[in-house]
Amino acid sequence: MTNRLIIFDTTLRDGEQSPGASMTREEKIRVARQLEKMRVDVIEAGFAAASPGDFEAIRAIAETIRESTVCSLARASEADIERAGEAIRPAPQKRVHTFIATSPIHMEKKLRMTPDQVVEQAVKAIGWARRYTDDVEFSAEDAGRSDLDFLCRIFEAVIRAGATTVNVPDTVGYNLPRQFAGTIEQLLARVPNADKVIWSVHCHNDLGLAVANSLAAVLAGARQVECTINGLGERAGNAALEEVVMAVRTRPDLFQLETAIETTQIVPASRLVSQITGYPVQPNKAIVGANAFAHESGIHQDGVLKHRETYEIMRAEDVGWAQNKLVLGKHSGRNAFKSRLAELGIVLESEEALNAAFARFKELADKKHEIFDADLQALVSDETVTPAQEHFKLNYSQVTSETGETPRAKIILGLDGEERKAEANGSGPVDAAFKAIEQVVQSGTQLLLYSVNAITTGTDAQGEVTVRLMKGERVVNGQGADTDIVIASIKAYLNALNKLYAGLDKVNPQGNV
Amino acid sequence: MTNRLIIFDTTLRDGEQSPGASMTREEKIRVARQLEKMRVDVIEAGFAAASPGDFEAIRAIAETIRESTVCSLARASEADIERAGEAIRPAPQKRVHTFIATSPIHMEKKLRMTPDQVVEQAVKAIGWARRYTDDVEFSAEDAGRSDLDFLCRIFEAVIRAGATTVNVPDTVGYNLPRQFAGTIEQLLARVPNADKVIWSVHCHNDLGLAVANSLAAVLAGARQVECTINGLGERAGNAALEEVVMAVRTRPDLFQLETAIETTQIVPASRLVSQITGYPVQPNKAIVGANAFAHESGIHQDGVLKHRETYEIMRAEDVGWAQNKLVLGKHSGRNAFKSRLAELGIVLESEEALNAAFARFKELADKKHEIFDADLQALVSDETVTPAQEHFKLNYSQVTSETGETPRAKIILGLDGEERKAEANGSGPVDAAFKAIEQVVQSGTQLLLYSVNAITTGTDAQGEVTVRLMKGERVVNGQGADTDIVIASIKAYLNALNKLYAGLDKVNPQGNV
Repeated sequence: MTNRLIIFDTTLRDGEQSPGASMTREEKIRVARQLEKMRVDVIEAGFAAASPGDFEAIRAIAETIRESTVCSLARASEADIERAGEAIRPAPQKRVHTFIATSPIHMEKKLRMTPDQVVEQAVKAIGWARRYTDDVEFSAEDAGRSDLDFLCRIFEAVIRAGATTVNVPDTVGYNLPRQFAGTIEQLLARVPNADKVIWSVHCHNDLGLAVANSLAAVLAGARQVECTINGLGERAGNAALEEVVMAVRTRPDLFQLETAIETTQIVPASRLVSQITGYPVQPNKAIVGANAFAHESGIHQDGVLKHRETYEIMRAEDVGWAQNKLVLGKHSGRNAFKSRLAELGIVLESEEALNAAFARFKELADKKHEIFDADLQALVSDETVTPAQEHFKLNYSQVTSETGETPRAKIILGLDGEERKAEANGSGPVDAAFKAIEQVVQSGTQLLLYSVNAITTGTDAQGEVTVRLMKGERVVNGQGADTDIVIASIKAYLNALNKLYAGLDKVNPQGNV
Repeated sequence: MTNRLIIFDTTLRDGEQSPGASMTREEKIRVARQLEKMRVDVIEAGFAAASPGDFEAIRAIAETIRESTVCSLARASEADIERAGEAIRPAPQKRVHTFIATSPIHMEKKLRMTPDQVVEQAVKAIGWARRYTDDVEFSAEDAGRSDLDFLCRIFEAVIRAGATTVNVPDTVGYNLPRQFAGTIEQLLARVPNADKVIWSVHCHNDLGLAVANSLAAVLAGARQVECTINGLGERAGNAALEEVVMAVRTRPDLFQLETAIETTQIVPASRLVSQITGYPVQPNKAIVGANAFAHESGIHQDGVLKHRETYEIMRAEDVGWAQNKLVLGKHSGRNAFKSRLAELGIVLESEEALNAAFARFKELADKKHEIFDADLQALVSDETVTPAQEHFKLNYSQVTSETGETPRAKIILGLDGEERKAEANGSGPVDAAFKAIEQVVQSGTQLLLYSVNAITTGTDAQGEVTVRLMKGERVVNGQGADTDIVIASIKAYLNALNKLYAGLDKVNPQGNV
């Protein structure tokens, strides 16, 4: 058995299925670049058949990524697999990941197929996938609740048909570590051709056990873990990449395994994904939470920390908790700006985008003394809805708030080039501004979530606002950053509206692996 | 072996050691009441010797709580144990929890004691504790890195001396489930009088494995789990109570164990602790995160959720995810208000506090159409710094923000009854307001964190602002809620300053169990 553990990141597929976490093509490319920089082995870039947007994003990632394998999910149907195969075609290393449900409840209620039909379909799917690549993964959806004899049968069949990785998902997060490890041990022992493939696991976190289940499976012989940055994903999410990787690295005595991951890229990846999806990371999150390495926060624990190693099993710098560097100021030029972005792994797609970002940088530098890396990332996030998609634009705003008076906002929006004015009262300046916008837009959306986090410390920090809007069954997150919290809120609201109108969101694709 | 699993909550002790999570006496009582309502077996209320404030809070909880056992932590010294014993004296069921480090690195570097001296001290500590109660818990600090032979020796000695619960902490979160379960199995097999006591575990989450390690230990014979609401705690926190309890409950086939926990109180407890400490819960947190039961959020997953049970292993209503009830409106009277607070488990300490809260409720009802339970909880949180402690008070504020102009704030603060005016510019209205406050107060604090979350949905929701200020080595969180985000920010900032000036924070006590 190999001593290499393959890290398969599905932030862009399963992670993206979180409510409102849909990403634009440009955002997906930015995340994929960071994953490549972190040396992830396989990037699951999406589910090609889910929507034309998903197809295009996978295609763009396949054209961009050189080091990691690019993968698309596909149901076990010829049409799905064709879309997946076409989407990943430009990638130097490419994988098709096809799946079918194997638990009695899913076969009967969802697929309406007999077990024999399911095996037959799975074997056909491997054949279709092999037309596009020799690297084919097969997943038995809801394996955690499937009959073990049937799992042995279907895995043996797909391995014979040419699958090179077989994946055992705990789709509903129902398993416990010892039991899940037992399943993997049984499969490795009972499937006659088990030694021909890499065994993979994909765990969900409904009981808080996704990482533990993944690690238990690795100790039982699995050599690929499917995971996401920050544990992002539907419901309670997937196994967190950072926890899996750091557990393996911190306990070489138990694992004797290596991953290719460049761990210093973990915290930058965490921040990027949080910023793009609008999903905050709680302070007490392992590895990537703000408190995870509390001794780094400048807080001394007198009397206890006489020796640092008494309470420290990992070093903050190993996972990328460098001090947020002061990089640029008011007098920095366009080249310095561009090269710092490049160091952060940010490549703007056009000269126009770079110019627009640089103009915003100058505006920000007028308001804020010190510009940190995190400020630059927020600045660039603002550029993700490109002008062509920017249906609504803020031209002017004025808000007031005074004790005893009703807060009031005046705004002027640009709407396809035309100026529209509105004024409204509200229960606060943000409410007033949103109501003024709605006088113009009349979107009929419902505000589900509103949150603000400061990007850096200090009172002149930019606030990064996330709003989540729902219209019918469509949910989008919008982000906006500014030193002025009201302006940041307006930007976030308009960003969400622009996404709704540009059709960048999509109905949840059916990839419940 | 019993089939009862004892739930020992240490939110008020280990959880409170998170940076800035210090709670006032009133806040601690409110959390303790909720823990009692949830039927937690043991409430670790604090560390009596850490500070006079901690002592008083434990004492007040011991006077209030009737159903749960009230516990204080104490180092293995006569002075510490005396303080603990005195603090818990009024409780009907009371426990002293004493600890000493047992790992070579801790004995040598922190305690500077030989193993023989450590055993002797531990045995003495049990004797001192037995003067106050028959319910005595002993913890071997850093057991996860201690020598197993030595652990067997010290546990045997303390059990002979009269300890009734012995606890095995993984202080630095270094263990993996299978290995940690192995340690528990060994201890139960090798300690001759192991069957005389309850075995307990206390796991930290540095590698994301606190819950998995706790559950593995339970399968190996542990019958008490030490945990916190939301997994709060230093660094990456402790085992999350909600995940431990729901795993045991969801998998009776594997555990055959019962807890006394009233699970419908889990989400209210989560919200209360988050609101009081200012520690947000990330949306993809298991059980208590906003997305944990995504089908409850009104988002339909077409085509997949033909049958609800295909993807659901727990019911949202079982953990208290009821719809946030519309309870009160503009015309609700003082009695309706008081009785709804009582239903929420909120008992205000005085008529003045109730009157002040009711006045704020009326103000809020003028601005906001519908008042939800969460609004009431925020309203009451505002009352936690009682007038006597309210050094700084906001009498008036006016802020403006206009495109192209520098944001400006005017404020009038009450400072021990005297009015002080100030005006300042800033990079945004919040920055301007904070700068104006600092003109008056000149606190010399540094703003470490600023975040806002909407309490309910809709644009007229109250925003709940948390600020974290650092002055020297002292860190405090302040909270404020208002429909106006600038006012909420000012309240939060003043709340933090008031805590600093009232000395409600404390240096981190040395309870690193």
